[in-house]
Amino acid sequence: MSNTFGSLFRVTTFGESHAKGLGVVLDGCPAGLEIGVRTIQDQLDRRKPGQSKITTPRKESDQVEILSGIFQGRTLGTPIGMVIYNQDQRPGAYEDLKDLYRPGHADYTYDQRYGFRDFRGGGRASNRETAGRVAAGAIAAKMIEELAGMKTLAWVEQVHRICAEIDHETVKFDEVESNIVRCPDEKVASEMIKAIEKAKKDGNSLGGKIRFRVAPVVAGLGAPVFDKLTAEIAKALMSIPATRSVGFGLAGKAIELTGLEHNDAFVLKEGGKAGTLTNNAGGVLGGISNGEPIYGEVTFKPTATLSSLQKTLTTDLTPVEFKARGRHDPCVLPRAVPIVEAMINLVLADHCLRYSVASMARLKKVFS
Amino acid sequence: MSNTFGSLFRVTTFGESHAKGLGVVLDGCPAGLEIGVRTIQDQLDRRKPGQSKITTPRKESDQVEILSGIFQGRTLGTPIGMVIYNQDQRPGAYEDLKDLYRPGHADYTYDQRYGFRDFRGGGRASNRETAGRVAAGAIAAKMIEELAGMKTLAWVEQVHRICAEIDHETVKFDEVESNIVRCPDEKVASEMIKAIEKAKKDGNSLGGKIRFRVAPVVAGLGAPVFDKLTAEIAKALMSIPATRSVGFGLAGKAIELTGLEHNDAFVLKEGGKAGTLTNNAGGVLGGISNGEPIYGEVTFKPTATLSSLQKTLTTDLTPVEFKARGRHDPCVLPRAVPIVEAMINLVLADHCLRYSVASMARLKKVFS
Amino acid sequence: MSNTFGSLFRVTTFGESHAKGLGVVLDGCPAGLEIGVRTIQDQLDRRKPGQSKITTPRKESDQVEILSGIFQGRTLGTPIGMVIYNQDQRPGAYEDLKDLYRPGHADYTYDQRYGFRDFRGGGRASNRETAGRVAAGAIAAKMIEELAGMKTLAWVEQVHRICAEIDHETVKFDEVESNIVRCPDEKVASEMIKAIEKAKKDGNSLGGKIRFRVAPVVAGLGAPVFDKLTAEIAKALMSIPATRSVGFGLAGKAIELTGLEHNDAFVLKEGGKAGTLTNNAGGVLGGISNGEPIYGEVTFKPTATLSSLQKTLTTDLTPVEFKARGRHDPCVLPRAVPIVEAMINLVLADHCLRYSVASMARLKKVFS
Amino acid sequence: MSNTFGSLFRVTTFGESHAKGLGVVLDGCPAGLEIGVRTIQDQLDRRKPGQSKITTPRKESDQVEILSGIFQGRTLGTPIGMVIYNQDQRPGAYEDLKDLYRPGHADYTYDQRYGFRDFRGGGRASNRETAGRVAAGAIAAKMIEELAGMKTLAWVEQVHRICAEIDHETVKFDEVESNIVRCPDEKVASEMIKAIEKAKKDGNSLGGKIRFRVAPVVAGLGAPVFDKLTAEIAKALMSIPATRSVGFGLAGKAIELTGLEHNDAFVLKEGGKAGTLTNNAGGVLGGISNGEPIYGEVTFKPTATLSSLQKTLTTDLTPVEFKARGRHDPCVLPRAVPIVEAMINLVLADHCLRYSVASMARLKKVFS
Repeated sequence: MSNTFGSLFRVTTFGESHAKGLGVVLDGCPAGLEIGVRTIQDQLDRRKPGQSKITTPRKESDQVEILSGIFQGRTLGTPIGMVIYNQDQRPGAYEDLKDLYRPGHADYTYDQRYGFRDFRGGGRASNRETAGRVAAGAIAAKMIEELAGMKTLAWVEQVHRICAEIDHETVKFDEVESNIVRCPDEKVASEMIKAIEKAKKDGNSLGGKIRFRVAPVVAGLGAPVFDKLTAEIAKALMSIPATRSVGFGLAGKAIELTGLEHNDAFVLKEGGKAGTLTNNAGGVLGGISNGEPIYGEVTFKPTATLSSLQKTLTTDLTPVEFKARGRHDPCVLPRAVPIVEAMINLVLADHCLRYSVASMARLKKVFS
Repeated sequence: MSNTFGSLFRVTTFGESHAKGLGVVLDGCPAGLEIGVRTIQDQLDRRKPGQSKITTPRKESDQVEILSGIFQGRTLGTPIGMVIYNQDQRPGAYEDLKDLYRPGHADYTYDQRYGFRDFRGGGRASNRETAGRVAAGAIAAKMIEELAGMKTLAWVEQVHRICAEIDHETVKFDEVESNIVRCPDEKVASEMIKAIEKAKKDGNSLGGKIRFRVAPVVAGLGAPVFDKLTAEIAKALMSIPATRSVGFGLAGKAIELTGLEHNDAFVLKEGGKAGTLTNNAGGVLGGISNGEPIYGEVTFKPTATLSSLQKTLTTDLTPVEFKARGRHDPCVLPRAVPIVEAMINLVLADHCLRYSVASMARLKKVFS
Repeated sequence: MSNTFGSLFRVTTFGESHAKGLGVVLDGCPAGLEIGVRTIQDQLDRRKPGQSKITTPRKESDQVEILSGIFQGRTLGTPIGMVIYNQDQRPGAYEDLKDLYRPGHADYTYDQRYGFRDFRGGGRASNRETAGRVAAGAIAAKMIEELAGMKTLAWVEQVHRICAEIDHETVKFDEVESNIVRCPDEKVASEMIKAIEKAKKDGNSLGGKIRFRVAPVVAGLGAPVFDKLTAEIAKALMSIPATRSVGFGLAGKAIELTGLEHNDAFVLKEGGKAGTLTNNAGGVLGGISNGEPIYGEVTFKPTATLSSLQKTLTTDLTPVEFKARGRHDPCVLPRAVPIVEAMINLVLADHCLRYSVASMARLKKVFS
Repeated sequence: MSNTFGSLFRVTTFGESHAKGLGVVLDGCPAGLEIGVRTIQDQLDRRKPGQSKITTPRKESDQVEILSGIFQGRTLGTPIGMVIYNQDQRPGAYEDLKDLYRPGHADYTYDQRYGFRDFRGGGRASNRETAGRVAAGAIAAKMIEELAGMKTLAWVEQVHRICAEIDHETVKFDEVESNIVRCPDEKVASEMIKAIEKAKKDGNSLGGKIRFRVAPVVAGLGAPVFDKLTAEIAKALMSIPATRSVGFGLAGKAIELTGLEHNDAFVLKEGGKAGTLTNNAGGVLGGISNGEPIYGEVTFKPTATLSSLQKTLTTDLTPVEFKARGRHDPCVLPRAVPIVEAMINLVLADHCLRYSVASMARLKKVFS
């Protein structure tokens, strides 16, 4: 069950890094949504390897093939099966990893859990698995925009100790996509790129922070008590490889304020709607969206794969030194941006469906 | 479904703050676990209101009544139903909240979602709901200790800007319980207590940070790709009211290290077992425990209820000023410590069960 | 997880026959449904023991206590917790069953599964558990009637070899309730009552068949491929103790027709709606309701508890003879009628919620 | 969610009859199970069209392609993705069905539910979907045999009014496979074949009954109260297209016995094990297997597709007459036999996993 995410808008991903193929089945997407393969491929292209000098040079075009669930350009309400065939397989290329537990990787833990693993390129633990999430996330994005006008945007805020200070209220998609590191501050972005290139050259790697925003947002999304919107997005983001922390609104900095400083006063807004004067809460109260923009952050550790000598153990527990050969990302953040967006969109799509069944008033609209 | 947590070791809580009663049904606890009501009540007592001068003075003894599922001191394998009757109900005491959207609370969002809410004391959004989690968590704690020797400990690390620096490797339960704020550094604890008392006097409130540790830990727990141990604990903790962020290992500070600094080298440990030289990862790699201690942190915003005048709206969207009357926690952290432990223990119990079905080798032990 | 039924309208029952209490948590009932305790108690009264000379004389008033989830006569959208305290407990009364595997009962199988069981009155395997289902089913019935005008009716069609031939299109609730065996044919009913009384006197027991009908029915309910309406109702009914088979439409008799005889032609019906000329299919095509009445049947084996000597084994596998003392139903069918209705209503309520999220057209009504 | 079956051993199927491809993702299969593609293909071959003169002549070789989850001949514990590409697509061949509601088919109900459907060959409602089930079922069969020696066998017992009387205790796989109708009584089989051929010639169709047996069986499988083994198998079988009823043990005939006749006495069996003298219960008591063979039956209606004129409506509700062109099964039963086995094996595999976590005694074996 652990390869399925979502309760009503439900994705199941499959595939190891070097298996014949990988993909996703999306079950629960309502019938009648117009969606083209281009919309999906566009998002995959943002995630695909080899897209710039600061990502892995592995050659994968990540072309998605839609097997089912979409007919004449519209969803059928049946499961949408999508497959990406692996191309850059290089048989034998990973033989040296067969008997090794790489530091910071899941080799050892997969062996502890399953007693057996696909050692080629990280197997199931590879970031490659997230391609399926991005494909399904593209459909989620289309649905929540069509139903409720909601849009999610993520960007790189920090790489190692290089921080941008992006205004989450005003940042735009084009700004994010204007450079290869996906940091909307051009000046900081070029510093980040230099730092990543240096880390690559040094056989080292860097982590960082991605921030995100959803706006506009329908009020009423999120399902207490366990499926609070924050709880569900937290899980969604922490399921992305290499994540270390997640926060909402002011995140950890909320501690520094007192209650009088942190509470967002309710006020009348234009159109006579209720809103809040400030938005320290990040758009969620008691686990339910209040209609203000949702924003937050997620941090990533530096990539575990390094082109430098590291001490480790073989599978028979003999100490060795090990140095990875190329073809990895010195910093995962630029390619993680569409993954973060996809995971948030999957949660929002699920909660749009769950919202519709939360009150008799809404249900009566359906049955009338 | 949103009131159920866990896949195999599954809890469903029910009850509003001022309903007749609240409680929990625990389904999936294996048969034959010895458990007494005292073990459960002890944890509830750590969470109950009125336990010290820095918590709400609301009078609730929170006596648990076990209705089913335990027979002759042992679990039957059937659902364990537990109820706590609400005592301090004061009819009419909350009439003034009926038509009000309190800032920082879920009044407005519940109305947006459900079109209707129980306005008495926060209704379902009240922290009171977590009593059911703590009751079930006590059973989870007993099970994981008996099966795998695992123990979870949480403590208050920070209140507002007052920080302790607790060594997560050595901190002990008795140290945590040695003072009313549950910070194991006596000196810092007394500062925290003073700060909370001052906040209370000022009609203000404070947030803070709780840290936690699980040790020892079985290697192999956690279910990629979506149900990574970190992802599941993140959701568990972010489902606790007032949480703002969650992190594992070095959490946000992992960004400041390079890959060469952050990676934990695998080394031989005593008894010829594999382990890691450092534990920056916090005991989880690729979403699966590696046998090293799991540690991390969760932050809480300052309590939303304040005994000071605040601007807000009535339910018919008229601006008003509002001031809460007593009976609330000026800082939720001391009482949140057992809730954090309970949520982590529920995740670990679930994953102990899931671990047993992950490999044929383990299953063959069962069927042999 | 096995004590939870339903995906969106989700019930979790708890409680053994002689535990302190038993009950149910209903999660997912939408907010704003008007429901009174009387509506729930009325259904429990139809199921309760001691209601007539042909049911068990065990004294249980089965008074339901609503703990949470309903406020001011309306559902809150939060979990509805309901408890029934066991009254007729007679400590020691079941000591003789402690070391015995009764034929036809679940004593042996519970021991095989759990290694331990509550031997008092069948423990969790007791029909008493179904009280929780009936309580939740009453709320389901209210919801589906209010949303879609749907009503479910069940009745006793056969006891042992005594068959009625009830027209499922015209039978009425009052006819079913007009006698203690709940067979709407008065003449056959009195034969059934005599047969049951005789069986009781003989220390024997009888089984039989219950039939059911849902009308009117919304077209479009049911979720292929696995959660077909027929599949879900089949599971629902086969989860009732003592059931042996379930069928829809003509059930097993469909075999005797050819395709040309069995197919229901689509025709225009009054109001210009599509319908079928005949209704051999029982209102479901491809697992989805077509708007015609749903009907079918479920059979029950004769009660396993007998006041006659039977051969069996003790728990240490010594052959013995055993004879049950009184207080059991010689035929479960009269009390099973409201249980059958409850289970069907739970499925229908779940599928009303699922229906609302199956198409963009319906969702757009919600978000408009 | 409705395209996923099972709780721990979980299959998700996707694909319409004439989509690019169809398939299945199996999540939760434990790591380390040896499985070859041949084992899977063998079962698919038993289900595939065109296998004999009494099945549809549609040309589909149903070659399975394993995309992921199996490495070096063993399961990885990761999701097993399997795809079958559709070959016999004949674009335009189904244009005449586009605007038609065929009698007995799901055209009308899919439109009512989804507002849109893939009209080519029945779309998602096609029996073709079951290919994914059979592929996953082959892995389930391998697992339950390896873990617990369990084997499932199904056969055709009745076609229209032609009945065999097969002894479920002694019937063998080779006998079932010895003829194209899969009825192990040669003489009755040839009558059935003649009847099916005649129905085909007459533009008519026939239904029938399949019976099944599982032996040997581990005692303790099945999860009360809702996930009783009988309830789960009932749902599994009723989710197969065209099913009308399902029964266990004596099924509907249990009614004709009294309790004294129906109860199976517990007796000592060889090896000093407990067993029952008779097996009227069909191996399940209180929803849990008792170790005796499980047996039962499932009935199928006559195929809805007919090469004869039938009255029906167009999608704009105009009455028309309609006659299907070839390429359908005049009787679904011969090809349904492996589907019935697959569905039962999926349930048993799921419950083998669930059994392992039901008691502390078994769990301690895992953690020791």
